[in-house]
Amino acid sequence: MRRTVEVRQSILAKNDRLAERNRGFFEARGLLVLNVLSAPGSGKTTFLRESVRLLAPKLKAGIIVGDLATDNDARRLRESGAPVVQITTGTVCHLEAEMVARAFRQLDLTGLELLIIENVGNLVCPASYDLGEDLRVVLLSVTEGEDKPLKYPPMFQAAHMVIISKMDLAQACSYDRKALRSNLRRVAPQAQVFEVSAKTGQGMDGWCEFLLKQRREHQPRTPQR
Amino acid sequence: MRRTVEVRQSILAKNDRLAERNRGFFEARGLLVLNVLSAPGSGKTTFLRESVRLLAPKLKAGIIVGDLATDNDARRLRESGAPVVQITTGTVCHLEAEMVARAFRQLDLTGLELLIIENVGNLVCPASYDLGEDLRVVLLSVTEGEDKPLKYPPMFQAAHMVIISKMDLAQACSYDRKALRSNLRRVAPQAQVFEVSAKTGQGMDGWCEFLLKQRREHQPRTPQR
Repeated sequence: MRRTVEVRQSILAKNDRLAERNRGFFEARGLLVLNVLSAPGSGKTTFLRESVRLLAPKLKAGIIVGDLATDNDARRLRESGAPVVQITTGTVCHLEAEMVARAFRQLDLTGLELLIIENVGNLVCPASYDLGEDLRVVLLSVTEGEDKPLKYPPMFQAAHMVIISKMDLAQACSYDRKALRSNLRRVAPQAQVFEVSAKTGQGMDGWCEFLLKQRREHQPRTPQR
Repeated sequence: MRRTVEVRQSILAKNDRLAERNRGFFEARGLLVLNVLSAPGSGKTTFLRESVRLLAPKLKAGIIVGDLATDNDARRLRESGAPVVQITTGTVCHLEAEMVARAFRQLDLTGLELLIIENVGNLVCPASYDLGEDLRVVLLSVTEGEDKPLKYPPMFQAAHMVIISKMDLAQACSYDRKALRSNLRRVAPQAQVFEVSAKTGQGMDGWCEFLLKQRREHQPRTPQR
């Protein structure tokens, strides 16, 4: 499978160059950019809709959202009042820098300070694709099990922030905070961890305060990979 | 990206040939083979451990389990009493027919009637890789949201059975049966649907009866793709 490996490396090298171009563009526009990643069904869309709604009085955000099919998520995200562009990837299991570059040219960036990219729901493949973001945010819902950082290490190793979502279900699914924190310390000691429920609002204010602080101190960052 | 597409097609064509070889091997051994797929954290391992435990008096099963890292799942599955082989894929986001062929040669197949392959947790990529299985079983937990069949159509289009898992959490997460059934009818009208909770046992007897019937009437099948 040597030829496969070579082709994969050349695809990733091309993606990395286009990601750096995105990074330069974002810097010139003064945008803080998040790449938000998780398994399908971890609650990315609800979490982002609520984050943007809470941030709206202080920070103007735009959203790019990727899915294989449907524009369901774009419709849900527009309820936040933010401008949204949907990317549908067909069978492609991740977003690439080039898709993002096409998408942000469709957004009215005037006055935007925060750009959120909601990636395809997949805890494996999107980890390899830099999009030019400043911060990687990985969601893990309490219903998915505390062992996930150990079983999907590349995704967690590259995370700046880990959001434990659906805390309203913590009791119903016997969430073991101690076990999850211990697994995160092993795999992703660099990541800041937030526990939230977008449904009840738990932890959302703290998360939004953190984002506002990031925006104030914003410096473009080099990816951790 | 034309070259990429061509390389991908040649990888899939090679995989399809090796999958047919697996299919022939399984037929000769009289094995019913399941390829079990879902997003990370849908509860595949617990569901399979309980299925094998319930089936044990009537049907002898073996298990092959794929993960990027760790042998956690193999250890959990061994609690069922069945023989288990763990495949660790490193960064590869799906199982391939060749990996499965290496794995089943490490299993003692004597007396086995059912072989269960637990794929890597990923609702996108494994859909493209035939492993030589008879039946594709896709799990979707009630916590993941009713829109998933619409958003990840290739996985559901190729399913023979869809297992709605974690029914014990249905009320806590306001599971909407009608919406999910309607989405499944649109995307996967061919699939038989089971609602189960491996934790409480709900629906597990019906599922096991169904598997026993499949085993009795077993004929190797051609993949639906």
